[in-house]
Amino acid sequence: MKISDLGEFGLIESIKKSFPGRSSRTLVGIGDDAAALRISPSSVLLATTDMLLEGVHFDLSFTDLFSLGWKSAAVNASDIAAMGGVPRYFLTSLGIPTGMSVEAVREFYRGFGAFTRSRKASLTGGDTCRSRRGFVVGVTAFGEIKKSEVLRRSGARHGDTVFVTGTLGDAAAGLELLQKRGKGHGSRKQKMSGFKELLQKHLRPEPRIAEGRTLARSGCVSAMIDLSDGLSSDLGHICKQSGVGAEIYGDRIPLSPEILKTEKTLKRSVLIYALSGGEDYELLFTVPERKMRKYRSLRISATPIGRITKRSGIVFVDKRGSKRRLEPGGYEHFRSRV
Amino acid sequence: MKISDLGEFGLIESIKKSFPGRSSRTLVGIGDDAAALRISPSSVLLATTDMLLEGVHFDLSFTDLFSLGWKSAAVNASDIAAMGGVPRYFLTSLGIPTGMSVEAVREFYRGFGAFTRSRKASLTGGDTCRSRRGFVVGVTAFGEIKKSEVLRRSGARHGDTVFVTGTLGDAAAGLELLQKRGKGHGSRKQKMSGFKELLQKHLRPEPRIAEGRTLARSGCVSAMIDLSDGLSSDLGHICKQSGVGAEIYGDRIPLSPEILKTEKTLKRSVLIYALSGGEDYELLFTVPERKMRKYRSLRISATPIGRITKRSGIVFVDKRGSKRRLEPGGYEHFRSRV
Repeated sequence: MKISDLGEFGLIESIKKSFPGRSSRTLVGIGDDAAALRISPSSVLLATTDMLLEGVHFDLSFTDLFSLGWKSAAVNASDIAAMGGVPRYFLTSLGIPTGMSVEAVREFYRGFGAFTRSRKASLTGGDTCRSRRGFVVGVTAFGEIKKSEVLRRSGARHGDTVFVTGTLGDAAAGLELLQKRGKGHGSRKQKMSGFKELLQKHLRPEPRIAEGRTLARSGCVSAMIDLSDGLSSDLGHICKQSGVGAEIYGDRIPLSPEILKTEKTLKRSVLIYALSGGEDYELLFTVPERKMRKYRSLRISATPIGRITKRSGIVFVDKRGSKRRLEPGGYEHFRSRV
Repeated sequence: MKISDLGEFGLIESIKKSFPGRSSRTLVGIGDDAAALRISPSSVLLATTDMLLEGVHFDLSFTDLFSLGWKSAAVNASDIAAMGGVPRYFLTSLGIPTGMSVEAVREFYRGFGAFTRSRKASLTGGDTCRSRRGFVVGVTAFGEIKKSEVLRRSGARHGDTVFVTGTLGDAAAGLELLQKRGKGHGSRKQKMSGFKELLQKHLRPEPRIAEGRTLARSGCVSAMIDLSDGLSSDLGHICKQSGVGAEIYGDRIPLSPEILKTEKTLKRSVLIYALSGGEDYELLFTVPERKMRKYRSLRISATPIGRITKRSGIVFVDKRGSKRRLEPGGYEHFRSRV
């Protein structure tokens, strides 16, 4: 069977099934943002790993190595944040192409270190080897959290409000601008000058660690995930793992001033980026009605974009009130892009 | 500067220098077999990561995917064993070439699971993505250990006896046999039939977890490392990090019956494999004189092969008593092979 017939998440399901016996100390295993492992009666270790491959996840023709180092740390930190934890320790493993200079590797680590230091985390070890086929980056991040505070994907219930931090689609629009700029000439380059924040969002994402902690401590949140694959896919994970559905209101989707200016340059509806574009690294979470009052007192900067429904699947409601089904269309590996 | 001018270990030193501030909770950071992170007043988390790249670390023309899965888990487990710990949890991240079948990925995980189950460990999560350039395997392993039991590379002292578990060079000889078999025809294939254990040692290594635990608990060992890069390189790490040297006696090097039969087929001195061949995943450790009595009572199956000296560098003493300097000649990435 081809992997493209199963898709990435189908493959993960299939792997999960072949590892049925779970240790009693594994609080959360395969299939969430991070694994959660009991290390003391009240304390849990969060652990996550992500691989970034040249030609798949990044293109060194428009990604500088400082940004790549930053982002490699940030995307793993985001998975820890999505469980409610704080990333404390990192391991890296690099496959370095023979032609790469020592200075280039240092620049990668300068960016990696700038991120980890800004979050009071440490690089504690790893592995380096040569690669014959492009630059390969593997990162593992660890954090600790109280057992009672762990936020999973599976707790959303009918009636909960769906929230998202920040604005959506910026990273995907930024990526497309970078790709176009790479190919473009003089006049096109000038047109990109007004999109600094979109490019920044793609190159140096800022995971919502503080917000994740506040939410986890508050006890207000029923389910949480970080937006790495895109709203439609990641909300799909929450729905599937919680056994529910969701309705999303198009006119509530938070959009940045810069993305609204891209329609002329990119000639696509910005909603495509907002619904299906990956790598925003914002937090998507659900709050039950009875916790709304307490939630508001937290003063988290997040936007209510919809609600959880009994019926499975995600329904998109546009500003005229007409509904259509939203299929998971984030950037899912192995399947064709949207 | 080219990375080949620095070598893998020079590069790691250079990275280490750019991360000077270490958290007070990091007991062991960059530059040992695994990181050791304090998670409670008496308990430490051991964490390690290793990357295996197609065309660099493995060749799918003679490595079956079950063995590759087994080995990917085993080599990480070995790093935890080398610190005295037991690997409990694993994360995997796979970069899967587009053409690879679901069955092939399952076979990889069948091997991975066979190893982890045999060691009572769990796969707790990870990441999968597509790769445009060969199969990429990243594994992270972690375990717990009492703070007082952590065995580092840096504790060897003048006069300590150098021990090694098992026999040396088998995996490297096995690899060379597999490479030759790949190219060979009928008669050559038959000649390989007597080398099953050498091939097995390369394909499905058995890290010395039980021995590592016994040694760590005993308090007899001053320094320990696992043999992944080869005796000369890995003993070199112990010597450098302990600020000492070592003498190794050629006639004490433990050799398997099978490797002694390879000289006719491989036409090389077996000592080359034993001293410089990587991937044996045996334990190399040092025992101070005053602990020898207690050490003997442990009945560990290991061979004394030399002793730690004040003077830096490794001296090889052959059976006639003549001495020569042994340079690190294990399989070190970025430098040319021996």
